[in-house]
Amino acid sequence: MSNELHSPDVAYILQNVLGCKWTLHLLAEVRRGVNRPGQLVRSADGLTTKVLNERLVKLVRFGLLEKTSFPEVPPRVEYELTAFGRRFTSLLDEIDRLQAEL
Amino acid sequence: MSNELHSPDVAYILQNVLGCKWTLHLLAEVRRGVNRPGQLVRSADGLTTKVLNERLVKLVRFGLLEKTSFPEVPPRVEYELTAFGRRFTSLLDEIDRLQAEL
Repeated sequence: MSNELHSPDVAYILQNVLGCKWTLHLLAEVRRGVNRPGQLVRSADGLTTKVLNERLVKLVRFGLLEKTSFPEVPPRVEYELTAFGRRFTSLLDEIDRLQAEL
Repeated sequence: MSNELHSPDVAYILQNVLGCKWTLHLLAEVRRGVNRPGQLVRSADGLTTKVLNERLVKLVRFGLLEKTSFPEVPPRVEYELTAFGRRFTSLLDEIDRLQAEL
């Protein structure tokens, strides 16, 4: 999957994602079509470019997001959920659903 | 739910459970009908009574397990999954399923 040679460890990734509000926020934004770094940095108060970039690199490394660079002037970059990312965000939905039922 | 006044925080509990191999092991054992502390302590090499008891107290506090004391001689204690515990272990199954698909 994407850049990974080994299968991602879902439990490890889930612990990491659930422990970081920015990571959860970014997954939700990309999922609803907010794909460009400039849009993403404006999507939440307090989110800096540095933190945004760290989280995006991590999400690509986890295999949840895929980065595409378009050869345009000015260059355009977009992030999208991978197939694994879509399955993973469905798992996050399940967690929300269970929480809502309690 | 059980002793909790507030709803448990599913994301917090999930992070905690995924981070502890004994906790995952004990949930799986209780789920398949290994309900008594004496059986549970013998269910895994390296699991001490102290660690077992700490994990059982935590799982009851999280609302995942329910403890029942039977007024017998000698006294008998059993642990069972709560309704929340059954939903929660289904979520753990989803994580395993996603992992297996990768």
